[in-house]
Amino acid sequence: MEIKDFLKRKSEWVKGEGPRSDIVMSTRIRIARNVNGHPFYNWADKTKRKEVFEKMMAAMKGAVTFKDAQLIKMKDTTPIERTFLVERHLISNEHTHDVDSKGLVIANEETLSIMLNEEDHLRLQVIKSGFNLMEAWKIIDEIDTNLGTHLPYAYSSKFGYLTACPTNTGTGLRSSVMLHMPALELTNQMERVYEAISKLGLTIRGFYGEGSEASGNFFQISNQVSLGHSEMDILDNFGRVVDKIIEREKDTRDYLMENKKREVTDNIFRSFGTLKSARIITSSETIRLLSAVRLGVDLGLIKEVTVTALNEILLLMQPGHLQVLNNEGLGQSERDIRRADMIRDKLV
Amino acid sequence: MEIKDFLKRKSEWVKGEGPRSDIVMSTRIRIARNVNGHPFYNWADKTKRKEVFEKMMAAMKGAVTFKDAQLIKMKDTTPIERTFLVERHLISNEHTHDVDSKGLVIANEETLSIMLNEEDHLRLQVIKSGFNLMEAWKIIDEIDTNLGTHLPYAYSSKFGYLTACPTNTGTGLRSSVMLHMPALELTNQMERVYEAISKLGLTIRGFYGEGSEASGNFFQISNQVSLGHSEMDILDNFGRVVDKIIEREKDTRDYLMENKKREVTDNIFRSFGTLKSARIITSSETIRLLSAVRLGVDLGLIKEVTVTALNEILLLMQPGHLQVLNNEGLGQSERDIRRADMIRDKLV
Repeated sequence: MEIKDFLKRKSEWVKGEGPRSDIVMSTRIRIARNVNGHPFYNWADKTKRKEVFEKMMAAMKGAVTFKDAQLIKMKDTTPIERTFLVERHLISNEHTHDVDSKGLVIANEETLSIMLNEEDHLRLQVIKSGFNLMEAWKIIDEIDTNLGTHLPYAYSSKFGYLTACPTNTGTGLRSSVMLHMPALELTNQMERVYEAISKLGLTIRGFYGEGSEASGNFFQISNQVSLGHSEMDILDNFGRVVDKIIEREKDTRDYLMENKKREVTDNIFRSFGTLKSARIITSSETIRLLSAVRLGVDLGLIKEVTVTALNEILLLMQPGHLQVLNNEGLGQSERDIRRADMIRDKLV
Repeated sequence: MEIKDFLKRKSEWVKGEGPRSDIVMSTRIRIARNVNGHPFYNWADKTKRKEVFEKMMAAMKGAVTFKDAQLIKMKDTTPIERTFLVERHLISNEHTHDVDSKGLVIANEETLSIMLNEEDHLRLQVIKSGFNLMEAWKIIDEIDTNLGTHLPYAYSSKFGYLTACPTNTGTGLRSSVMLHMPALELTNQMERVYEAISKLGLTIRGFYGEGSEASGNFFQISNQVSLGHSEMDILDNFGRVVDKIIEREKDTRDYLMENKKREVTDNIFRSFGTLKSARIITSSETIRLLSAVRLGVDLGLIKEVTVTALNEILLLMQPGHLQVLNNEGLGQSERDIRRADMIRDKLV
């Protein structure tokens, strides 16, 4: 299966289903693991990196859990394809450099992905549609347990799982949700949400990952606690905070529909009209318009488009996706044209 | 027939037919006449004003030319209805004040209108769709000649027709065209057009008449010469200038379609999308969007809407029209809502 064949299937989260999918686009859990007896990736030389890589690949090829998985060597991918994988949230930016001994394993409609030889030897990730912490945890825990029978993990009875960066030591767990919060943004409440979140030790960032600004009212909230609590406690605590934010967004949507219905509706339909009409469109405008249209769908104002279609556009509108889709390298102004064409193709 | 019944018919120019109707929305000719033996309106007292008004009304009621005409006494109209008539270009702003002895005569799908007791006793006006100076002249000349057999005009063999303001003395003629010049505006050529026009003794203003800024790329160009030339010479000269401006606009449209087709098309379809989608819209945004959509229709890019529909919206979107249409007084924010509703009603 080639990278461009990814376009033929939908990532599971794109379906836009699951609990509270009106506000929570997806839930993500990742765990960091390292193979015992091998130096951390950034301390290892070329040979050591290759060694642990081969060991991990062999273990996965042998394990029944991964019999339908796709194993990709990063060095076999082109730069555009790596960008494409970053855009799909399957690999980190870091994973696109020094690709010699890096790998990626994908299974289950991209629900599961594992980076091999990123900062840690193994970064397992599960992304599920909607607000689904327990479901995601169940999947990743099972994979992790199974994989542990094939690969000896670096583990200390005092600290827990050992990781390259101490912030990940302990459970190696990080959980996050991608939230769509147009009402909180519109009513200037995001400042307060930011404050509350950072006081609770959580981080917030944009749709496009680390360092990206929140755009189009899509916000990713992650927990940073890994050490000193059980996985269940961490997820439980994180889940309760997210619940509160969801409620606040929901209440504000209700308020807007009661008090500003015309203005909100106007913005939603104008955005939809522009999205269906533009012949040239930048990605930042697209994401802003998609946000408004998504709100329209969630509020029942727009019925002729599905959240799945909007999520697909959110993926496909990105530079790497547009280039894989068109099977050629494209400069920015050419992308702005192809983006508009792709959107009309999906919506009109 | 009541004022609101005007909405059931279309002004002839709204059809958007006639020569060069891709660029010339309408051609207008008006002539100023005064009744001999009566003081000019602004010099006359109440009684004298009434006297000449009754005389003119009687003459028209008797003349076969006006047997199907509508005779309106301005004092029988409400302020909103007067605004409505101004918006239809049937009366001037001045004609909405001191309405006691003012009148309006309308015939032939509003092609012909006559203001009684404006600055001059009689202001005859013919508006025709497209670029139609000779046709408009033929109609107004016939009416004028016929009316002259019922009413003795104030005329001097030295100066020609006498008028309240000396700039109108002579032929009493003023001709104008409403042009749509998006390409000249887009390419920043309007400055040069303004200069050329004022050097030639012509004036240029916006769609909404005297004092209004040109908005949405609609420009009204008028001749100011009345004295010292025959009507034919004046119209001939004016026509040749307008021809040149039309050619320039046409050439620039061709240039844009060859060199900026994507950008122009993008703007046209975005405008169309917004117009069909908005739930709140101001008049200045509407006119800007209508201009782009009209260009799209003229260039053959938009096929599902007619120029007639766009012209109708151009009329109906105005405050007076919206209020007559809705049969109630409306504040500005309420009008912005009703305007958007009316537009979707016409376009979607």
